[in-house]
Amino acid sequence: MYRTHTCGELRIEDVGQEVTLSGWVQRIRDLGGMSFIDLRDRYGITQIVANEGTSEKVVTTLSKIGREFVIQVNGVVKERSSKNKNIPTGEIEIEIKGLTILSKASLPPFTIKDDTDGGDELRMKYRYLDLRRKVVQENLILRAKMAHTTRSYLNSQEFIETETPVLINSTPEGARDFIVPSRINPGKFYALPQSPQVFKQLLMIAGFDRYYQIVKCFRDEDLRADRQPEFTQIDCEMSFVEQEDILDTFEGLTKHLFKEIKGIEVTEFPRIPYSEAIEKYGSDKPDTRFDMLIHELTGIAKGNGFVVFDSADYIGGICAQGCAGYSRKQLDQLANWVKRPQIGAKGLIYVKYNTDGSFKSSVDKFYSQDDLKKWAEKFNARPGDLLLVMSGNDSHTLKALGELRLKMGGQLNLRNNNEFKPLWVIDFPLLEWDKESGRYHAMHHPFTSPKPEDIPLLDSAPEKVRANAYDLVINGVEIGGGSVRIFDSALQAKMFGKLGFTTEQAQAQFGFLMNAFKYGAPPHAGIAFGFDRLVSLFAGLDSIRDVIAFPKNNAGRDVMIDSPSEVTKEQLDELGLRIIQKED
Amino acid sequence: MYRTHTCGELRIEDVGQEVTLSGWVQRIRDLGGMSFIDLRDRYGITQIVANEGTSEKVVTTLSKIGREFVIQVNGVVKERSSKNKNIPTGEIEIEIKGLTILSKASLPPFTIKDDTDGGDELRMKYRYLDLRRKVVQENLILRAKMAHTTRSYLNSQEFIETETPVLINSTPEGARDFIVPSRINPGKFYALPQSPQVFKQLLMIAGFDRYYQIVKCFRDEDLRADRQPEFTQIDCEMSFVEQEDILDTFEGLTKHLFKEIKGIEVTEFPRIPYSEAIEKYGSDKPDTRFDMLIHELTGIAKGNGFVVFDSADYIGGICAQGCAGYSRKQLDQLANWVKRPQIGAKGLIYVKYNTDGSFKSSVDKFYSQDDLKKWAEKFNARPGDLLLVMSGNDSHTLKALGELRLKMGGQLNLRNNNEFKPLWVIDFPLLEWDKESGRYHAMHHPFTSPKPEDIPLLDSAPEKVRANAYDLVINGVEIGGGSVRIFDSALQAKMFGKLGFTTEQAQAQFGFLMNAFKYGAPPHAGIAFGFDRLVSLFAGLDSIRDVIAFPKNNAGRDVMIDSPSEVTKEQLDELGLRIIQKED
Repeated sequence: MYRTHTCGELRIEDVGQEVTLSGWVQRIRDLGGMSFIDLRDRYGITQIVANEGTSEKVVTTLSKIGREFVIQVNGVVKERSSKNKNIPTGEIEIEIKGLTILSKASLPPFTIKDDTDGGDELRMKYRYLDLRRKVVQENLILRAKMAHTTRSYLNSQEFIETETPVLINSTPEGARDFIVPSRINPGKFYALPQSPQVFKQLLMIAGFDRYYQIVKCFRDEDLRADRQPEFTQIDCEMSFVEQEDILDTFEGLTKHLFKEIKGIEVTEFPRIPYSEAIEKYGSDKPDTRFDMLIHELTGIAKGNGFVVFDSADYIGGICAQGCAGYSRKQLDQLANWVKRPQIGAKGLIYVKYNTDGSFKSSVDKFYSQDDLKKWAEKFNARPGDLLLVMSGNDSHTLKALGELRLKMGGQLNLRNNNEFKPLWVIDFPLLEWDKESGRYHAMHHPFTSPKPEDIPLLDSAPEKVRANAYDLVINGVEIGGGSVRIFDSALQAKMFGKLGFTTEQAQAQFGFLMNAFKYGAPPHAGIAFGFDRLVSLFAGLDSIRDVIAFPKNNAGRDVMIDSPSEVTKEQLDELGLRIIQKED
Repeated sequence: MYRTHTCGELRIEDVGQEVTLSGWVQRIRDLGGMSFIDLRDRYGITQIVANEGTSEKVVTTLSKIGREFVIQVNGVVKERSSKNKNIPTGEIEIEIKGLTILSKASLPPFTIKDDTDGGDELRMKYRYLDLRRKVVQENLILRAKMAHTTRSYLNSQEFIETETPVLINSTPEGARDFIVPSRINPGKFYALPQSPQVFKQLLMIAGFDRYYQIVKCFRDEDLRADRQPEFTQIDCEMSFVEQEDILDTFEGLTKHLFKEIKGIEVTEFPRIPYSEAIEKYGSDKPDTRFDMLIHELTGIAKGNGFVVFDSADYIGGICAQGCAGYSRKQLDQLANWVKRPQIGAKGLIYVKYNTDGSFKSSVDKFYSQDDLKKWAEKFNARPGDLLLVMSGNDSHTLKALGELRLKMGGQLNLRNNNEFKPLWVIDFPLLEWDKESGRYHAMHHPFTSPKPEDIPLLDSAPEKVRANAYDLVINGVEIGGGSVRIFDSALQAKMFGKLGFTTEQAQAQFGFLMNAFKYGAPPHAGIAFGFDRLVSLFAGLDSIRDVIAFPKNNAGRDVMIDSPSEVTKEQLDELGLRIIQKED
C-alpha cells in the first residue's frame, strides 16, 4: 500500500502520528520560507507543509512538481496554526519528511475544479480528467449508492435479481435495434435488448414470482440531448399482483430512496388519469410542483365574433399569478416563444386582471369587461394576475399550453430542484393510431393488458380502450412506466392482430412467448425505472450525461476512445459482411 | 393481490385463518371422497384438500384442472392428520372453499421435477419450464445472493460500483470481438467489451481509487462446454496498491462469500509461483484438494539404455497411493487414456511398489529393483503404491501428468465437491512466444506490469520476465485473475513494442490510454472474477450453464427464442451492409 491514510481521513486526534499519504497535487503555494501543497484524492484534501526544517532533498524534489502530479508524502500530523473550517481535514497539516514523485503530469487541457474552464467537447475527450472533478465524482458516487440502496430494498421485498441475455434477437416492433452479426451462424444476427421485457415475463411463467435487474438497454435512435444509445433501467416484474400492488411496491421503493439518499420524507403519490393530466397540465408527465392548471374556455369564449376563437376546436389558458404588470415587450416575448416551431402555436392572447379590478386584453375589441370577468372566474384569478390563452386543435393547443405552463413556472421560480412531487399517471390509452403506417401502435408495448371492462371496445372503438398501464412522474420527468400484462395467449394473439401483425408474423417473432402462455402463466405486471434519469433527478441535474461515467455525444460517439470506428477487412470477411453505399 | 400468503408461508400457528393462495398445480391425488392438490410457488408447496363438505361448484372446477394449471384457492388452514415432516408447511393443509382457474396448462413436454425426464435440448427450448424446477431455481437464487453479498462487501470496503460502456471499439489484441454496426456513423462499428479493462484503468487515473462492477462481457470464440459468448465478471481495480494489497482484499471477499453463503470458514490461501505450479501439478490452476504431486526423475532415470527416457528432455511421474494392485486391464486403460489426442502422451510407464517391498514395472528390463527403489524414494512412495511415469518434451509431459493427476484424483475420490481449497498462483511469465504470429503475446494482457527487478530482461531475455500477475484458483478452477498495471506511458509504449505493435498501431488503438498516463496516473492493480464459474463452484456444478437463466448452447444459439436469426433487408440497408459469401 502506498499510503497509511487517505487524504480525507486525518483529524486533530491524529496529531503526532507519522503518516504516508498519496494523491494528486491540487495546488502549490510557495510563501518564501514555507510551501503548501493541497494533496487530493477521492476522499478529500490534506494540506502538506514544507518549512525551514525540511530536508534539502525534499525541497529539491518539491521544486519539480506541478499540478496533477501524483506524489507520495511521508510526514508528521501537526495542528494547523490557521485552521480551515470548510474541509474536514482543515485542523491539521502534514509536515513533510519524505517525498516521492509517483507520476509526472503534463498541464491538463482544462482546470480540475468544480467550475472548470473546459468546454463540453474538450471535457468529453479527456473524460478521465473531467471525472477528477469533485462535482462529477459525486454524481457517480450518488449513482452507485442509489443502485445499492435499490438492490437492498428490492432484495428485502423478496425480489430476485436475475441477469437476462444481452445477445437476443431482433424484433421490428418499437424502436430500432442494434444488431450484432454472428460469425459462427453466418448471415444471422443477434440484437441488443431494448428491454428485457420478454425474458422477465418468461421468468414469471417460470415461477420466479418477483424479478428485478439493474440492466443496460439499447436503442438505435436518432439521439437527443437526454438520450443515450445505451441506458440503464431498474427493471421489475411481479406475479399474482394487480395494478395497485405494483403502485404500492414502487411507491415504497421511491420513498425509501428519497429517505435513504436525500433524507426527505415523500408521502403523497397522487394518481391522475391520463385524460385528466392532458386536460389540466397539457402533458402526460405533469410537473406538479406548482399549480397554474389549464382551464378550458371553449364554452364561454366562442361566439363573440373573434374568428380565431370561433373557428377553434378548443380554447384554453393558464393564469400566471401576479403577472398583470408584464410589459408589452414581455408579452411579445411570450407570444414569440409559443410561435417557435418547437411549440408551433399560432398566437397568444393575454388578459391582464389589473389590481384595480379592471381587465386589459389583446381581444378587448371582442370581449367586454363582463366577458373577461367570466374568464377570470374560470381561472379563479385575482386582481394582479395574467391570463394567457390559446386556441386551435385540442391536442396541439393543450400541448402548447402545457409547454407555456412549464415556461411560466420556470420564469416565476416555481420549479424548485430541491422539492420533489411524484405522482402516478394511470389509465393510459392502450393503442394510438399511427398515420404513417396506417395502423394502431401499442402506446406502452404489445404485452400490455387492456382494462377488462374496456375489452369489448377493442373491436368497436379501439382508440377508446384504456390500458392497465401507469407512469411514475416526478417534477415533470417520466421516471418509470409499466403495465399489467396479458397472460392469456388468445388475448395476446388478438392484440397482435390489432397491431397489424399477421398470425405468421406474430408466431415468428413472439411464438415462444405465446407458446409459454399455454403452460400455465400467472397474472403478472411490471415496471421499469429509467435509472439514469432517476439519478439525474436526485442530483438536481438536467441531463443524464452527467450521471454516466463515459457517456456518448449526440452523434452516438465516444470522443475519448473514438468509437464507433472502422474494423479490419479480415473481421468483416469472417462475418461474411461487406459495407455498401448506404441507400438514402 | 391474488393471494394473502405464499405457498411456503403457512404454519401450525395459522390454523383457523381464512387464506387465499395462488400457484401451480404440482400434483393432484383423488382418493374417492377426498382430493389433495399440492400447490406450488417459488416459496414452497402447500397441500389443498377437498372433502365431502366441499361445494359442488368447487368440485366441478376441480375436475377440470391438471398439472401446471395456475389456480387461486380460498379456504381455511387446518391441522393435517398425517403430517409431512419434509416440508415446512407439512403440518397444515387448506380446506378448500373457493377455486378459480387463472390459467390452463397443456401437458408440459417434460416433468417439472428435480429429476426430470427432459433431455438437454428440450429443456433449453422450454427453458421457462425448466426454470420451474426447484434445483434450477435454487441455482439462480444462489447467484442473486452471491451477487448481492459481493456488492455489500465491496461497498463496505469503499469500492464504487461504476457502469462502463457496452458499446466501445474493437481492438484486435486478444480474442475476437463482437461488433455492432452504427447506423448514424455509416461504415463504422462499435464492439462489445471483452472486459472493461481500459475503462477501469481510466477510472483509476480519474481518481476513483476503488472501482468494481458486476458486468457482462463478450467474446466471439468457438464455444466449448463451459464457455458462453456472454459471461459475467466481478471486475475490480484499486489505486495506490501493490500486489499484496489486492491478494489481501480479494482473499477477504472470497472468505466472506464462503462464510455468508455456505457457512464455511476458509482460512488458508497459499501462494504458489507459476513455475512451481507447473512443476508440481502440471497446471497453472492446480487442484490442491489432494496431493499426488508430480516428481521429476530426469536425473536418476536416464542412462539405463531405455531409449524413450534417454532421448527425453523430461521424465516425471505421480504416485497413486494404494494402487499397486491395479490389474493389467486398469493399467492399459490408463495408458490408452493418456494417449488420447486430448492428452497426447506417447505412453505410460508404471511401477508397482508391492506390499512385500518388491517392485514390478513395465521397464523391468532396464531398471533394477534398486533403481526403482530410488524412484520410489523420490515420490515418498510406500509399499502398496503405484508410480505412473511419463517422459518427453517438458511442458507437454508436465501438462499430461497434470491431467493424469486429476484423473487419478477423481478415480480415487479425492476431489470432494464440498471441500474448497483456494490458492493464489503468482509470478506468471509476462510474455509467451506465439509460433503462429512469430511474436510475443501478453500472457495476461498488454497492460500488465513486469516485476521491476525483471525489467532489464525485457531486452535480453523477454521470455524470462515475470509479471506482477496472479490467479485465484479454487479446486482446480481459475476463479479470478489480475495484475499490477503499468502506469508509466514510456514503459507501456515499450510493452506495445515487445508485442509487435508499431508506434502508429499502438497510438491508434491505445493512444487515449497512453495519453491519459501523461496527466498523472496512480499506481494501480486489479482483478476480475469469473462470476458464472464462481457460482457454479459454490453450487457444486460442473457447467456454468446451470447458473445462467437463459444460456446459449455450444453453437452460441438460444434455442428458446431462436437467436441469432435473420434480419430484414431494410435493417441491413439502413446500416449500409450486405451479406456476402463467407470466405473460407
